Amino acid sequence: MSVAVDATALRSFVVDLLTSNNADHEQASVFATALVWSDLMGRSTHGVWRLASYMDRYLKGLINCPCQPQVEQTGSSTLTIDGDAGFGHFLGHKGMQHAIGLAADSGVGVVTVRNSNHFGCAGYFASMAAEAGMFGIATSNSIAKLAAPGGTTPIYGTNPIAFGSPVENAPPIILDMATAAASGTSVIRAAEKGLTLPEGILVDRDGKPVTDPALAKDAAMLPFGGAKGGGIAMIVEILSAVLSGAALSTDVRSMFNDFSGSGKNGHCFIAIDIKRLIPLEIYYQQMALLLRRIKDSAGASGTPPRLPGEQRWSVMQQQSAHGVDLESQVYESLVSLARDAKIDAPAPL
Amino acid sequence: MSVAVDATALRSFVVDLLTSNNADHEQASVFATALVWSDLMGRSTHGVWRLASYMDRYLKGLINCPCQPQVEQTGSSTLTIDGDAGFGHFLGHKGMQHAIGLAADSGVGVVTVRNSNHFGCAGYFASMAAEAGMFGIATSNSIAKLAAPGGTTPIYGTNPIAFGSPVENAPPIILDMATAAASGTSVIRAAEKGLTLPEGILVDRDGKPVTDPALAKDAAMLPFGGAKGGGIAMIVEILSAVLSGAALSTDVRSMFNDFSGSGKNGHCFIAIDIKRLIPLEIYYQQMALLLRRIKDSAGASGTPPRLPGEQRWSVMQQQSAHGVDLESQVYESLVSLARDAKIDAPAPL
Repeated sequence: MSVAVDATALRSFVVDLLTSNNADHEQASVFATALVWSDLMGRSTHGVWRLASYMDRYLKGLINCPCQPQVEQTGSSTLTIDGDAGFGHFLGHKGMQHAIGLAADSGVGVVTVRNSNHFGCAGYFASMAAEAGMFGIATSNSIAKLAAPGGTTPIYGTNPIAFGSPVENAPPIILDMATAAASGTSVIRAAEKGLTLPEGILVDRDGKPVTDPALAKDAAMLPFGGAKGGGIAMIVEILSAVLSGAALSTDVRSMFNDFSGSGKNGHCFIAIDIKRLIPLEIYYQQMALLLRRIKDSAGASGTPPRLPGEQRWSVMQQQSAHGVDLESQVYESLVSLARDAKIDAPAPL
Repeated sequence: MSVAVDATALRSFVVDLLTSNNADHEQASVFATALVWSDLMGRSTHGVWRLASYMDRYLKGLINCPCQPQVEQTGSSTLTIDGDAGFGHFLGHKGMQHAIGLAADSGVGVVTVRNSNHFGCAGYFASMAAEAGMFGIATSNSIAKLAAPGGTTPIYGTNPIAFGSPVENAPPIILDMATAAASGTSVIRAAEKGLTLPEGILVDRDGKPVTDPALAKDAAMLPFGGAKGGGIAMIVEILSAVLSGAALSTDVRSMFNDFSGSGKNGHCFIAIDIKRLIPLEIYYQQMALLLRRIKDSAGASGTPPRLPGEQRWSVMQQQSAHGVDLESQVYESLVSLARDAKIDAPAPL
């Protein structure tokens, strides 16, 4: 069962909910845009499904809105932000905006953010760079869930990394991936359905594979792609936390279970101004050639391979026109939040 | 059977071999250092095993030494190089040197190289950045061998990407990986031994898994880690070739089989000056904490997880002290090259 709501109405609701609880209007608006973007793209686990938890943390003073970020430019292409425990989405947006600005001036911008919170979908920030005609990278660390390859206890978060690169007359390529072998949600759903997991998703404290998803609580998740994927998870931790001075590895707080303080997540944003490296028309030609080669690589009988982000953008287009599909329980949680705040919930379409 | 030779003597031999054939001394020296570095690190498939092929291409005029690279700085943190078909190792070294120089000035350096050739181990260039106290990234495209996820014909090279980050009083973290699920060498060795490959390494033209390594010639290799690893292979192609204007995808020439022109490979080098983002002493503390957490994550009974590059550096140390182990056939190929050039082969230890 699901309920469709208009995306603009949904976004306004998120802003109203926060501002009716004395949040800063501008920061709440940026948060709402990024949050609803995830729903629009079909990434519902990073959308308003999390709103009740974000609100709870905001009302408990664990997320500041307004936050007072301290921004320090340290070179013509580097800048650091202490996020003052603001919304990760707002700080991520600010971080990528600065990276794009630095790149417009110098060719490249690298921005690290510390003292932040869960920032939602990394792809949102990568797409900001792509929309500005730049190649973008966005990373974040997160609460430790993944064992290092050869380890048995959680060291890394599911540590997302996203890349964005523009395409002429089409949505950008957005590769937005967690570095886990499977999402936490897919493990929970497998447990609900009584399914068995393949090896390589979970590992127990003795280093043995766990294939019963019901045992996930006592297991660590594994990175995708063995030692290579585990290496990428480590690089995301280095970019997001070692280089930013954010909480590291097991020091990041869960947004759902740990109310002893703010998340302390760290992020890294990189923007590269493409036209400094190659004339834009040649870039677009090269990119179009690459995409054509990929699409033509299935052979005569096969379905053309999907490009990173391709399916998400089609969901975005569909839901922008016809409304965002929310699971009934998620919609009910919005109704409950609306009631508490004495505002209207977004109307079902 | 193997033959040990002194690393310094091996490097001198490579320089002598090239210069006795009228190559430029400086460029040959850089090539030799990077080539022998691969042997020292135990990456023998990227070491002097390839020397006869490089020499052949040089003597046929497909690799220029000296090359006359055209360097254009296009921003305070961006620079492009047209490599004039020089040795990829020399152009990679020059590219990362410029990236480090830009980063020293502006905080970050991004350098793309087009019109290059096979550059050896990406890790060599990442380690240059780490040795300069910087976080480094090096990528290259290469002759197309990998199908895109969902595709059946080769689109991407094994497209290596390497990251380097310094560690206090210890060798840097070097994550140096091809984006293929398995190396070409491991497939050849499996065929020699009559072994069966797991699914996920090779795919045939109908999209079916190939598990008989003897059928590799008519199959495409697959990226590591499914769609995520395939996405990384694509990002390496974008960084190395789309952003540089190098030959793309199936247009890159094989160094072993295609003598119709130079390789036309492209590369990308990124250096980030760590101290612009965080005081170096805090960086080293954060990194040490992360490494300790990883090492402690095996539980009481297990072997501590290996860090990216850890085993390679111990091979490097051992072989620097006691000589580089070369397979007998590889040593014989050097003796043969020496004979042709009327110079001495490196003496066995």
